[in-house]
Amino acid sequence: MLNTNETHDPTLRSWVASANGPQTDFPLQNLPYAVFRRAGATEAWRIGVAIGDQVLDLTHALCVDGLPELKDPELQNACRQSTLNALMTLGQPAWHALRLALSRALRAGAPAAAVLADALVPQSAVEYALPAQIGDYTDFYTSIHHATHVGALFRPDNPLLPNYKWVPIGYHGRASSIGISGQQFARPLGQTLPAGAATPELGPARRMDYELELGVFIGKGNAAGQRIALDRADEHVFGLCLLNDWSARDIQAWEYQPLGPFLAKNFATTISPWVVTLEALAPFRQPWARAVDDPQPLPYLDSPAHRDAGAIGIALEVAICTPQMRQAGLPPQRLGQSQFAQSYWSIAQMVAHHTINGCNLQAGDLLGSGTQSGPLAHEAGSLLELTHGGKQPMTLANGETRTFLQDGDEVILRGRCAADGAVSIGFGLCSGTLLPALD
Amino acid sequence: MLNTNETHDPTLRSWVASANGPQTDFPLQNLPYAVFRRAGATEAWRIGVAIGDQVLDLTHALCVDGLPELKDPELQNACRQSTLNALMTLGQPAWHALRLALSRALRAGAPAAAVLADALVPQSAVEYALPAQIGDYTDFYTSIHHATHVGALFRPDNPLLPNYKWVPIGYHGRASSIGISGQQFARPLGQTLPAGAATPELGPARRMDYELELGVFIGKGNAAGQRIALDRADEHVFGLCLLNDWSARDIQAWEYQPLGPFLAKNFATTISPWVVTLEALAPFRQPWARAVDDPQPLPYLDSPAHRDAGAIGIALEVAICTPQMRQAGLPPQRLGQSQFAQSYWSIAQMVAHHTINGCNLQAGDLLGSGTQSGPLAHEAGSLLELTHGGKQPMTLANGETRTFLQDGDEVILRGRCAADGAVSIGFGLCSGTLLPALD
Repeated sequence: MLNTNETHDPTLRSWVASANGPQTDFPLQNLPYAVFRRAGATEAWRIGVAIGDQVLDLTHALCVDGLPELKDPELQNACRQSTLNALMTLGQPAWHALRLALSRALRAGAPAAAVLADALVPQSAVEYALPAQIGDYTDFYTSIHHATHVGALFRPDNPLLPNYKWVPIGYHGRASSIGISGQQFARPLGQTLPAGAATPELGPARRMDYELELGVFIGKGNAAGQRIALDRADEHVFGLCLLNDWSARDIQAWEYQPLGPFLAKNFATTISPWVVTLEALAPFRQPWARAVDDPQPLPYLDSPAHRDAGAIGIALEVAICTPQMRQAGLPPQRLGQSQFAQSYWSIAQMVAHHTINGCNLQAGDLLGSGTQSGPLAHEAGSLLELTHGGKQPMTLANGETRTFLQDGDEVILRGRCAADGAVSIGFGLCSGTLLPALD
Repeated sequence: MLNTNETHDPTLRSWVASANGPQTDFPLQNLPYAVFRRAGATEAWRIGVAIGDQVLDLTHALCVDGLPELKDPELQNACRQSTLNALMTLGQPAWHALRLALSRALRAGAPAAAVLADALVPQSAVEYALPAQIGDYTDFYTSIHHATHVGALFRPDNPLLPNYKWVPIGYHGRASSIGISGQQFARPLGQTLPAGAATPELGPARRMDYELELGVFIGKGNAAGQRIALDRADEHVFGLCLLNDWSARDIQAWEYQPLGPFLAKNFATTISPWVVTLEALAPFRQPWARAVDDPQPLPYLDSPAHRDAGAIGIALEVAICTPQMRQAGLPPQRLGQSQFAQSYWSIAQMVAHHTINGCNLQAGDLLGSGTQSGPLAHEAGSLLELTHGGKQPMTLANGETRTFLQDGDEVILRGRCAADGAVSIGFGLCSGTLLPALD
């Protein structure tokens, strides 16, 4: 269980001026990691830390001796890599040491400021790569509201399956097609069964959707055959990002029996570049949202410490920017918003469940939270829910309507944490654009 | 489409005597690849080629200039790696060049024999690693007999789902827990719902099963958004191995709705060390087994060239060796046998379908064929089928009975190809052992 510490002190300010405003996603209390390089440059990818509207280049910072508190050569070496995997492998004490060193070097009055200023690159001038080499990607289904809404479309009398309140349902996704914010992909082709038809047809998917999710990067893994106990699970979690699990609902409906979603999902998954560490999220723990009549989870998914740790409060939202909106200079329009603290299953429960059978997790593995929806209509994390399975089109502010996504639509996810006595932090953007199908 | 060539000539014999008997899996006409090292040694993993009961060490062979026909430096470099990924990436012309060079250097009378003899290591003295770094693992469901048998257990009146004869059903599996022949793993713990119970319980899985499958290693991949056309699909396939998709049927039954199998499968998957190339399998093409009333596949899954290419005939079998059998010195007992040519969907159709939506495959990706079963009772590729869902125990020759696997049971897969006018080739062994559950 994580406690807040010196790095969460809300009175801390940075010598990077843009980190001190109330609007920034990246104050001194956040310090998320990404893999970046100067846009258009041929330089190597390196690890960066967000501070205000800047990226601190870790390789450069070490080169100029700008992180004097960071003595461990293994940790220094991990900071000089082109992915976060080595840093993830080192485990929580190393992650804390790095965060503390960064916090001290970036706070107002730090002696290192003079040399570190040269290691800053404006975020507007960089491009990002995937933060880690992702070995395996697993997507969960932790929002009971999403599961209930989607279930109701198929089984109005019995929306929630009997296993839902016992099993943190998950399935394996495709790692190769995970892309970073800015990902653009063609509308997928696939088999669908038109209503009333006896035989399927091949064509571009017609019911393209987004899914508003969080991604969870595994830090330290477990050996095959070993289980990660619920109360140790957080030690294995490096941090969180935003995740859009693009979905072709018409392909999914025809293919998913009996083995689950496949081509309906594996053409593209977009994540945000910044990984917000679990330590940065510690001040935003809050009580669980479980109803009193929910069954007590089985013992491997329940403990006093886990109950005390609480849920992580992350306000999520999804917005759309259509080609017409872009042409008219209109800003993206919010479609839905939800709160991760309402998730039925926690990150620790996902990890404990995933390994209860001895399945080995590895540094850089990505877990998706599943679509995060709330109980109310405007809290839907997908168009499938917002439009009641495509039956109720929604009207945008500029008069356009949508049931599902149209070619050229950009979908933008955001996430932000706020709590009394804490400086608010955010996740940056996770944006992706649906392009027309290729011939 | 592959044609037979000089390397398939049945009259060719090797200067490695053990490669010339009728029983060997590895005559000169096979030449499969593995990653190996001397057992117990601390030496680096390297690529080897099976010839009779020996392994030709490719790194050593190149070092002593034993493959004079292999001129391409890029190809030479790929042969010196510790996985097959680089070789897989090079594509079919390179694969053919290497096979031809090996065939000529290993055939009786080859001048290289003198120097190459030093590059041989007895198979009995080596250990194997996974042949490739597997980025993503997808398991298909291509045996209509398996799908029908399993469907009948759950839906006696309607065993085959409506999408089966249209969609090559597949789902994503777990890459991290794939192990090489010899893999031993503990009986997984998991949630199950006992018959008649209202709430699930956690415990060791009771219905442990094997699945008799082939694995397909992708060679050359495709860029995201690009499709691999059916008639080009074989150019992207490096080769085949045996695959045991261990399954916990009781965990599967409780967890698999609505997103498919997860913890019931991802604790372990075992593959054979030797990858038999698609080129080596060319002489074993035979007519498709499709029934005349099966629907014509959609055009992206059907072509004249694909129909002409035919199925690949591979006789598969699965055997068990129980602790009692081992103690009594009894050989493994065959439980089932089947024929890959009876698969409803081909490897090319798996590849074309997987990429129809633009999903990118990468060198080293592994596709499973799904459990291969035939129409007859003894042709079942799983205990679930052999014992009718665990209701009809089978009696082994030594008097033991089994419904599902017991602790200590070893399961051994074999595969072999035979055809008129061709030298028979085999896949070696794929063995794995179920250990007792860990506390």
